[in-house]
Order: sequence, then structure tokens, then C-alpha cells
Amino acid sequence: MSGNTWGDLFKVTIYGESHGEMIGMVIDGCPAGLKINFKSVEEDLRRRRPGQSKITTSREEPDLPHFVSGIFEGITTGTPIAGHIKNQDQRSQDYSHIASAYRPSHADFTYDQKYGHRDHRGGGRSSARETAARVMAGSIAKQLLNTVGVKISAYVSQVGSIELTKKYSELDLKKIESNLIRCPDSAVAKKMISEIEKVKSQGDTIGGVITGVITGCPVGLGSPVFDKLHADLGKAMLSINAVKGFEYGSGFEGVKLKGSEHNDVFHKKNKKMVTLTNHSGGVQGGISNGMDIYFRVAFKPVATLIQDQKTTDKNGKAVIIKGKGRHDPCVVPRAVPIVEAMAAIVLADHYLRMQTSKMSTLVGQK
Amino acid sequence: MSGNTWGDLFKVTIYGESHGEMIGMVIDGCPAGLKINFKSVEEDLRRRRPGQSKITTSREEPDLPHFVSGIFEGITTGTPIAGHIKNQDQRSQDYSHIASAYRPSHADFTYDQKYGHRDHRGGGRSSARETAARVMAGSIAKQLLNTVGVKISAYVSQVGSIELTKKYSELDLKKIESNLIRCPDSAVAKKMISEIEKVKSQGDTIGGVITGVITGCPVGLGSPVFDKLHADLGKAMLSINAVKGFEYGSGFEGVKLKGSEHNDVFHKKNKKMVTLTNHSGGVQGGISNGMDIYFRVAFKPVATLIQDQKTTDKNGKAVIIKGKGRHDPCVVPRAVPIVEAMAAIVLADHYLRMQTSKMSTLVGQK
Amino acid sequence: MSGNTWGDLFKVTIYGESHGEMIGMVIDGCPAGLKINFKSVEEDLRRRRPGQSKITTSREEPDLPHFVSGIFEGITTGTPIAGHIKNQDQRSQDYSHIASAYRPSHADFTYDQKYGHRDHRGGGRSSARETAARVMAGSIAKQLLNTVGVKISAYVSQVGSIELTKKYSELDLKKIESNLIRCPDSAVAKKMISEIEKVKSQGDTIGGVITGVITGCPVGLGSPVFDKLHADLGKAMLSINAVKGFEYGSGFEGVKLKGSEHNDVFHKKNKKMVTLTNHSGGVQGGISNGMDIYFRVAFKPVATLIQDQKTTDKNGKAVIIKGKGRHDPCVVPRAVPIVEAMAAIVLADHYLRMQTSKMSTLVGQK
Amino acid sequence: MSGNTWGDLFKVTIYGESHGEMIGMVIDGCPAGLKINFKSVEEDLRRRRPGQSKITTSREEPDLPHFVSGIFEGITTGTPIAGHIKNQDQRSQDYSHIASAYRPSHADFTYDQKYGHRDHRGGGRSSARETAARVMAGSIAKQLLNTVGVKISAYVSQVGSIELTKKYSELDLKKIESNLIRCPDSAVAKKMISEIEKVKSQGDTIGGVITGVITGCPVGLGSPVFDKLHADLGKAMLSINAVKGFEYGSGFEGVKLKGSEHNDVFHKKNKKMVTLTNHSGGVQGGISNGMDIYFRVAFKPVATLIQDQKTTDKNGKAVIIKGKGRHDPCVVPRAVPIVEAMAAIVLADHYLRMQTSKMSTLVGQK
Repeated sequence: MSGNTWGDLFKVTIYGESHGEMIGMVIDGCPAGLKINFKSVEEDLRRRRPGQSKITTSREEPDLPHFVSGIFEGITTGTPIAGHIKNQDQRSQDYSHIASAYRPSHADFTYDQKYGHRDHRGGGRSSARETAARVMAGSIAKQLLNTVGVKISAYVSQVGSIELTKKYSELDLKKIESNLIRCPDSAVAKKMISEIEKVKSQGDTIGGVITGVITGCPVGLGSPVFDKLHADLGKAMLSINAVKGFEYGSGFEGVKLKGSEHNDVFHKKNKKMVTLTNHSGGVQGGISNGMDIYFRVAFKPVATLIQDQKTTDKNGKAVIIKGKGRHDPCVVPRAVPIVEAMAAIVLADHYLRMQTSKMSTLVGQK
Repeated sequence: MSGNTWGDLFKVTIYGESHGEMIGMVIDGCPAGLKINFKSVEEDLRRRRPGQSKITTSREEPDLPHFVSGIFEGITTGTPIAGHIKNQDQRSQDYSHIASAYRPSHADFTYDQKYGHRDHRGGGRSSARETAARVMAGSIAKQLLNTVGVKISAYVSQVGSIELTKKYSELDLKKIESNLIRCPDSAVAKKMISEIEKVKSQGDTIGGVITGVITGCPVGLGSPVFDKLHADLGKAMLSINAVKGFEYGSGFEGVKLKGSEHNDVFHKKNKKMVTLTNHSGGVQGGISNGMDIYFRVAFKPVATLIQDQKTTDKNGKAVIIKGKGRHDPCVVPRAVPIVEAMAAIVLADHYLRMQTSKMSTLVGQK
Repeated sequence: MSGNTWGDLFKVTIYGESHGEMIGMVIDGCPAGLKINFKSVEEDLRRRRPGQSKITTSREEPDLPHFVSGIFEGITTGTPIAGHIKNQDQRSQDYSHIASAYRPSHADFTYDQKYGHRDHRGGGRSSARETAARVMAGSIAKQLLNTVGVKISAYVSQVGSIELTKKYSELDLKKIESNLIRCPDSAVAKKMISEIEKVKSQGDTIGGVITGVITGCPVGLGSPVFDKLHADLGKAMLSINAVKGFEYGSGFEGVKLKGSEHNDVFHKKNKKMVTLTNHSGGVQGGISNGMDIYFRVAFKPVATLIQDQKTTDKNGKAVIIKGKGRHDPCVVPRAVPIVEAMAAIVLADHYLRMQTSKMSTLVGQK
Repeated sequence: MSGNTWGDLFKVTIYGESHGEMIGMVIDGCPAGLKINFKSVEEDLRRRRPGQSKITTSREEPDLPHFVSGIFEGITTGTPIAGHIKNQDQRSQDYSHIASAYRPSHADFTYDQKYGHRDHRGGGRSSARETAARVMAGSIAKQLLNTVGVKISAYVSQVGSIELTKKYSELDLKKIESNLIRCPDSAVAKKMISEIEKVKSQGDTIGGVITGVITGCPVGLGSPVFDKLHADLGKAMLSINAVKGFEYGSGFEGVKLKGSEHNDVFHKKNKKMVTLTNHSGGVQGGISNGMDIYFRVAFKPVATLIQDQKTTDKNGKAVIIKGKGRHDPCVVPRAVPIVEAMAAIVLADHYLRMQTSKMSTLVGQK
């Protein structure tokens, strides 16, 4: 298949199908000497796990991470960190009706064309189940970044047409986990939850937006031509199932501004260079400038419905697909830790890549 | 610096500074046996070149491509295709005033912090001048894709608040080159040009949006985990100077739809599998499905102004930067061929990567 | 650590420590549609497994391969193939005496310096135990290559000073597995086995040479600058624990020949281009030419002895290391399937890379 | 073609054909802040250049390096360093006789099969002319390594059957450049030169061996599974035209030793950990241990002869190739700087990769 590895120096390889034995990951390149907080990995997976609340899928998975290499006495050794999560609550028989039918807006058709032979059970590799491995790897990445003060948060800022209009800087991000939808404004959260319950009761689904915020990022992450920091963040987000768009800093709205309004003026504050505004979203010329990095990620409505749907089978014959299987009415509450994980993986990689940018910081140089 | 190479199989490496001797590229991995149309490369570069009209920068560069390897008797040999474009109209002295000052929303500060030593003349490597090399490489990628029927177009769909509301499918894309702004609707184009002239007369700049459209893409491009086709397209676009956002298919607006509205139903038409709607934007599960691929790219206003701006120098001292130098009042008309080039590079790479996805299409297999 | 992934298209990532829970591998890029012979994978691992005979280590490992993804109904799906082998007969307490002492010619010192924190039990990641994962991946690579007629063999051609002087072409390679040492000449094999038994009885170890032979290789594998086919084969062999040298074709002896003696003259035979001699070893300009590929790999004597050895601990204090632990008196009999596996991984990768070398063989081209 | 880029962090891409306009290179990843000694680059190229003495080819090339990016005011900026060397003394008409004939032991046949279309003039890309770009890049790598005390030397240790039996440690490496053949023992050098003159007068060619020696290498270079330091050195050497073998440390001879003879005992000397012997060749477990690294590289006799040779053309018709063209009777004197260059590129890459091996040396860590 190719493309199951992310990163140049903090290299994450993932594997596993929705209805296989396990989902797993290998991190090659994590520096030795990092003390691992296993509870923290479990906690990140718990926030992503299916069956966590009434507004998520009813597939029940404990999703416990199990590490098998690269960590000795609780500390990384520099060797590949491998780990996995067992699949437990598969019901493969639920999927026999779609072995040859192409579900609308799913990957059945494209996989079939590209690979010829596919595991159709629960979507196989195309299922968002693979994101559990991303969260596991991302949790290690977060711990690496924490050592230099980087903090990554994400929250739901839109469900369908219900939008949280306040900016991230006007919110108390500590409240994100205070409700099922993971929106730091409890009034808006309530509306979002109702909206999801409504579409769920209709056997339907709805889209949403997640906002990501990174604080404490050192100056200098990002490689300023093809591998700009925001370009890698964008790819990381767009690689998550159901994502349709990405913007950072001023984003699509910034288009309407004039340069004189948009430019972020530098000034020195407490011996640190800062900008008065932050339309740049913490990245200039593809490199982090030390200001907050913030971005928005659009998720389409889940394609699996509890409704009959018309479609076509392998042979082009018109068929009806029954609304069966377990799925999320809206992907965003569970996608919050996935967005964080991918952001962490991108930043961890660029933090390591940054180490060789100039002679003066290399080991052994005067 | 790292990150100056794009691609896994169609690998493009670029180099060069704004005020250096030349901008160049090396393509490693272009298959042997491709007949090169040199006129077509020149034409793409002409569409990007500075000084082409009253609404672009006045730096005058002929930007003639010069190939030095990998092509023999007009046909690729499979060896690296190297080429360059000479810089001719540099005026390095124009930049002495910014050798130590950090221009707002430019990469001066971040480069200085990351690398310590930098070529400040015209922005050095951070200048969009490097995109000339992308266009040169992209032009070869287009020619590779043409052999299987892929066609890539891009046009300006927004300048400031002036928006082209028609969808790509309602427009005549052959009219893109009929006006200076590269908008296929001549009435809207006129308004866009006036808007740019207005901000230019104020010594100011404005943002814009470019829409990209890819037709004739075979089914099967894209690698469906980290290297989803739209994820690589997104990264490619976000790696272009001044880009702040990317969306494809239904994009940010699709968030508001229900699954039952958003799903694209399959049906067979003329022996080809198609979908009734195309909210998927031609990509499902990260793999092209044969429908049109379309996307939008947001560009911020250019940061260089013909106005005095407050900022800070290296040492944190407040300074005023004079409005000098030559620059574009709005980047989008010249960015159209850049968007096309990056899309072509992404697709060419995935077209080659697709070759090894299944046993039945491998050379020598029965 | 980095460097635990091999390959551009047939990408193998491996992980695991000698005394960890398991050794594992992920293959990303194996084409879909390959029918897997699981018995054959077991057989390759059986040939590498410890405890197989009186001339190998007494560590007893069944080394059964367990696949967890990428294969559905016995056929590859194109998604990552992950699998592992459980460690069962670790005796970690045997290694407490070397937690802080640096064993001569082992990696204890270099790992400690490079990583600071290391799993010392049984050598941790530096143990040749990791090669079980290579054999598992190599076995899949062989099956891919078999589909186009490639056959890979290896045999022991030297132990200490006992040398098999016949060339590969004078031997019956079907006899390789007929004795414990894996030498196709039974008389020489007997001498080799005695030699190993002798050094073993002295608590000592001895080196050896393995010869590899590849027949049926299609013309065109290899990328002729940095990634020459023989250069990748050489790196692959040199990456195996204890290897000190690699030569192919005429090798070091070829140095003494004149060009007029060394040159391989082309002629056409049965519609196939062949060469009269094969000093080139089946590779010309870095590309396979269809003739047999043959090479030799030198293994040093195993560094672990059943003798007391002087050395130094972490703090530079002189210490005596007791001769303890289980190890091979000579590595070559068990290294035969490892050499084959690495050759297969290299060739599988280049077979896939070959697919995009010219326009005329690309999917969808006329 | 693929495979024209070397390295993970110090990434070298090269291009150019023997009879094209230029040979060139791009280094992406050289840290900013390295002061470049241009004279030193010229000197390395002078040692490789054709026409330098009576025992090399008579093609006359000044081979002056020309840098076009990545260096500002004599110091690297961290951006890609691009440079090239113009071809001047091509005589393309000399090669018309081989446009369709396959020269014995050349790459004509394999290129034709793999790529279909090829530049036959002077061997095109398969000519060793491309190594000029390697020397140019290697010269920058050497300057990077010099900053931490690494010194790389190489010399001719064998020509045909004339062997320099003294070890590197018994020789005065300062004398390498004192004779045409680059052998530090003047008596042996004289014999080697006579031998080359003899085979040259016969219109024939002869092979040779180059020994490489690296002193002052810090502990910790090399990534100890697939990317062992000696494995990358081996691949680098085997990627040079005409190389047939590589061994390091005890090499093929070490096979005959017992473990108790071969093991290198550690002891502390002047606060530094050293080994009493150095059969390991400065690398243990794939990682440099601070001792001298030494290795041997076997070069076959040049395939171009000044004799008529039988062979076959494209269509399998027997033809006679006339002994024409300009070539070296023995490649080793000019290959000395190439061996050094490739060693430097490998070490520079691993020196940068080493920077992220442990937390305690990362920027910003306590």
C-alpha cells in the first residue's frame, strides 16, 4: 500500500484492520532517555475509544495500549517502540451484506479497483479504527514535546451549523473534557449534543469542525520549502478519515484582509520577540515563531447511515444497502484526541529535525 | 535545511535564492521515453513570471527554462532531469535596509533564529521566487500525466471579498487565460482587477482564493493512510508561499450537511462507475475514484507593502521599515500556474506509486 | 534509533529486543493479490532458529511466525503486513553480570555512549535475535519474487580456514540442507562441523563465509547511481550482525585480472542475451543483466566466549567477564536463511522499483 | 531512474551525463554556519580530474566547481547548496560506433533494457564522470566533519598483483600525494606505476584496491540495525563505478581467527575508552567506537580497452568493437578522492543523525 509511515526522524509506522486481531504502531527515532507515562497513553486512548458515550458508536472496545519493545525500566532506549491494541468487539458477520456492494462515500470501490482483493469487514484498513494506533504514537510524541514545554489541545468548535464563535483565546481550554462533545463552552456544547442526538434518532449523521491549539512551541520548527510546519500539519489533519479541509491562522477569512491589516508587527516583550497580532498562526515562512499555533479541521458527516441507501455492486447492478452496523452519528468528539495526536507527531518530528539546522548547536561543536 | 525534495517516485528537488545566480530543480524518477514539449514548459513559466502585467510585480524576469540533463534527443532517458532558470533582474541593494530588521509577517525572524546566518536579499530562500523551479518541474509532471488523459486547471475564484460564486462545473475553463487575473468569468474578473488596482494604489495588498480542477484522473491514485491523495494535495498547496487554507470537495461547507445529503451514490454509466453527486471531490478513502477532483486554496495578502511599517530589528529595537522593493499587490494571478504545478507533481508521484499496488499489473506477471 | 526500516517500495520495518516480549516486522508496500504460503515462512524460520543442532546455541525457541494484518483469506490485500515471533526462552538473569561491564567486541559500549540507557539483557536490540524478523519478512519477499521466477540460495563456503574451493556452478545446491552446516559438499561439510565442534569444546568461536546465489533474476533490477543492485545487496549483507566483508562477481580476486580477461562478452543464445563469462556477477552498471548473481559474505567469529575475558566496566575499571550465556560457536549455519532473506528483501524492493522505469510498461499507457 | 540521492539528513542529489552540458549536485541538509573553503573543493576535484598524469585518461577537463546557492558571504545558510562542473572536452563523435553495440562489461545492454532510450555518448549517465559531483559534495562533507576532528584519507594499496603489504598504521599517510598512483610507499608506488604503464602499452587495463582510513571519528555514529555505519560505508563504496568488493576491520581474513584472537579488549587510556587491538575496524554493533575506521575497496579492471573486442549489437548480431575513446588504464589513482568523498558523505549524514539519539543532548532540554 505504502504510505503507512509518517515522519523523517520521529518515524511512525502503523498497521491493522478494523476486524483483524490488532491495530499497532512502531515508532522509530524516539530519542533514548524519555520517561514514559503509561497512564497518559491510556488516557488519550480512552478519549478516542468507541462506546464512550451516548453520542458515539456502540462498538465497545477497552482499547488498552500494550508496548512490546523500545522501553526498558519505563524509559525509552532509542530502539523502535512497538505497541498494539487488540480488537475485541468485532462482529464481522454484520458486514456480509456489503462484501460486494459499494457503500456510498466509502472506500469500498476505490480499494477494490486499486488492490483487487480487500478485507471488507468493517471497512478493513479504510476504517477509522486505524487512528487508535495514531493516538498511541501521538501520546508518546506529546510526552517528548512536553519536555520542552509544548502543550497541544483540541476541541470541537462546530457541529453541523452550530458554531462556537468565540476564538480559542477567549475560551477556557481546561473545560474541554467537561462534556461529551469536548467543546469548552458548555452552552454551545449542549446545543451540539442535542443536534447529534437529533440526527442520530433520524438514522443520519452530521459533520463538524475541530480547532487545534499549540502553545509553548519553540521558535524554529518547520522546514521552509516543501516541509513547512503548517503544510505538514495540514497533511496530517487531511490524512485523518473524513477530513475535508484545513486552515491555520487567519485561514480562508484572512483572504479578505489587506496586507496592512493582516501583518503581524514584531515587538520585544520580556526579552522575547512576539507579535502584536497573530494572523500568522504561529508560523512564518513555514517555521514556528514562538506564538500560539492554531488551526481548524473540517470533518464531513459519517458515511454509514442507519437508513437504506441505494447504490451499486461490483458488477454495476443497482442494490439497496440496509442501514446496519455500529457507527458514530458525528465523528468530532472522538476525533479530538486524533487531531492532538497527529499534531504531536508532526511537531515531534520537526523538533528532532530542528536539531541539525545550525552548526552552533551540534554536539561536539565549540 | 531539509525539505527541499518532494515525492517518493517522481522526486523533485529544488534550490536557489531570490538574488542568487539561479533557481533550479532536479527531477529524479521520471520514466524514460517521455517526449518533452519544451514550449509548454516555457508557457507555464511565462504565466508565472514577474512583470507580466500591470497587476503584478515590476521585477522583470524572462524566466527561460534551461535543461542540462536527463533528456536526449527530446526524450527522457530515465536519468535525473536537471534544469534551471537564471535570475537576471535582481537589485540586491534595494534590500540593505532590511538586513537586520524583521519585516512583519515575513520569514526574516524565523530564518534568523533557526539558521543564524541568512541571505536577506529579497528574502533569500524564503522568497516565492523558488516557485519558478516548482513550475518547471510541474510542467514535466503535467506532460507525464497527459499521456493518461489527466488535465489540470486552476483559476482565481476570489480576490479580497469579491467572490466568484459559480461552481467550476458551471464555468468555461478555457476562458481562464482570457484576462490578467485568470478568472474564467469576465465580469467578475473585471471587478477583481479593479480591486487589485485599488489596493495597489494605496501601497497595500490583498488576499485571494484559487480553485483547482483535475479531470480525467484514473481511478486508484493515492495511498490511503497517511498519504491520502487529498492529504498530499493539501500539503503541496500549503507549501506554497502565502497559503493559509485548503479544502477539497464539499470542504468546510460540507460540515453542515447530513450524511444522507452528503453521500455520493454510485451508479454505472457507459460501463464506467460514477457517482450522482461529487461531494467527495473525486477522492474516497484517500484514493481517486475517477470523478473530477476539485479544491480551493486560500492565499493571504502579500506581506510587503509600499507603506512605512513599524517593526523591530535583530536586537529588539523598534524601527520603521520603508515601503520599498518590487512586489505583487495580490499573489493569486501568478500563483495559478504554481497551484497547477504542485497538483501535477503530486499526481505524477501517485500515478507512479500506483504501479505497484497489485500483482496483476506488475511487469512479468501472468 | 532510526534505521529500522529497509526499502523504498517493499518497505520492511522491524522491532524487538532479545529479551523483550516479541520480535516483529511490518511490511508496507507488498502488492495486493499475493497468495501466502505460511508453511514456507515457518520453514525459513526453522532454518534460522536457535537450538536446531549441536553446533548452534542451546537457547530453545520454536520461533513460530504470527501474522496479524495485511492478509485476508490467505492473500495479501496491499495493506501493511504485520507479524511477530514471541520470545520464549529468555533467561534474563544470565545477563546481570554484564549490566555494567563492556563485553569485548560487543555493542555494549557503543550503545551506552550513543543512547545513555540500554536494555543489556542478552544484548537487547544489538542481539542477532532481531534477524528472526528479517527472515519472516524475507520469506514474504521470496514469495513475491518466485512469481517471476527468481530463486535465491545461500550456503556455507568457509569455516575458519576450511574453504570450499569449488564454485557455486560446480555444486549441487539442492544438497545445501543435507547437513547441519549447510554446505552442499558433504566432505567439506564434515570438516567444517568438526572444526566448529573443536572450537566449541575450547569455549571458543570461529568465523565463516556464506556464498549467495540468485538465479532467474529478470534484466533491469537496480538503480544505477547510488542504489546499484550490488550496492544495496552489499549494504543488506553488511547490516547483518558479525559481517565484515562483501564481494560479488569476480570480487577482490578480480582486481588481479586484466580488462581483456575480465570482460564478459555478449552473445545471443536461444533469443536471450547472455555473456560468455560472468565476472560481472549478474550486475552491470548496477543493473541486473539476467545472468546469475553471486556474492560472498564474511562473518567474524562470535564475540561471546565460554572463557573468562578481561575488559572494562562503565567507569573504566578493569573487570573479568565470566564465560556464561548461550551462544553459537559459529554463526554461519544459522545465518544462511538470513543472507537469503536480506537478498530477497533487496530484490523485491528493486523489482517493484523497476516498474516505473519506462513509459511503455506503465498502466494505462498505449 | 531513482537512486540519485544519498543520505537522510545530509542529503546529496546528483545529476548529469558524460557528454551533457554539466555534472551537478545539490546538498540539502548541510547545517547553516559552516565556513566554506572553496580552494579545498577545487583541490579535491583536481585530484580526481581526468588528464592529470600519464597513467590516467587523456580527456582534459579543468573540472572547476561552481556553486550557485546555499552559501552567502562564504558561509552556508542552511538552504540547499547547489553546484556544478561544466563538461568541456567531450568528443561525442567518438562514440557513434557504439550507439547500437553493447560493449562488454559496460552498462549499455542493461540501460537499454531498463530504460529503452539512452544517451550512449561516453556512457551517458553510467560513465564515472558522475563521480565528479560526488567529490564536490564530499568536499563539503569533509569540511563539516573537520569541525569535530574527523580526518579521512585513502590510498592505493594494490594494483593487479602488486600489493602494499604494510598496514595503514605502519605507513606515513602524508606521502599519499607524493606520487602519481597515490600510494604512500614510494617503492611500491613505482612498481604499480610501471605495471599500469605496461598494461596501457598493451591497450589493456588492470584492477586495484584502495584502502580508506578515518581517524578522529567521535563515538556514536551509525544506526545499529539496517543503517550500521559500516553497512552505509559499504554501500557507498559499492556504488562507485567498477567496485566489486568491500571489507572493513579484519574483513575476509578475520574469518580465520578464533573469537579469543579476534575480540578487542577495552581499557581506559587517558580518560578515553580504547581497545587494545582493532579488529572491529572502529565500528561495534554498527556504531563508531572512537578507534580508527579502516576498510578496503576492490576495483575491477576498466572495461574500455584499446583493443578490438567481439560482442553483439542490439539485435543480437555479432560485431567487433574497435578500441577507441579515451579512458583510464587503471581507475584507482583517480578513485582515491572518490572513496574519500563517499566516506565523508556517509559520515556527515551519520554525524547529523547522531544529534537526536538521546534526550540529554537535544536543544532546549535541561
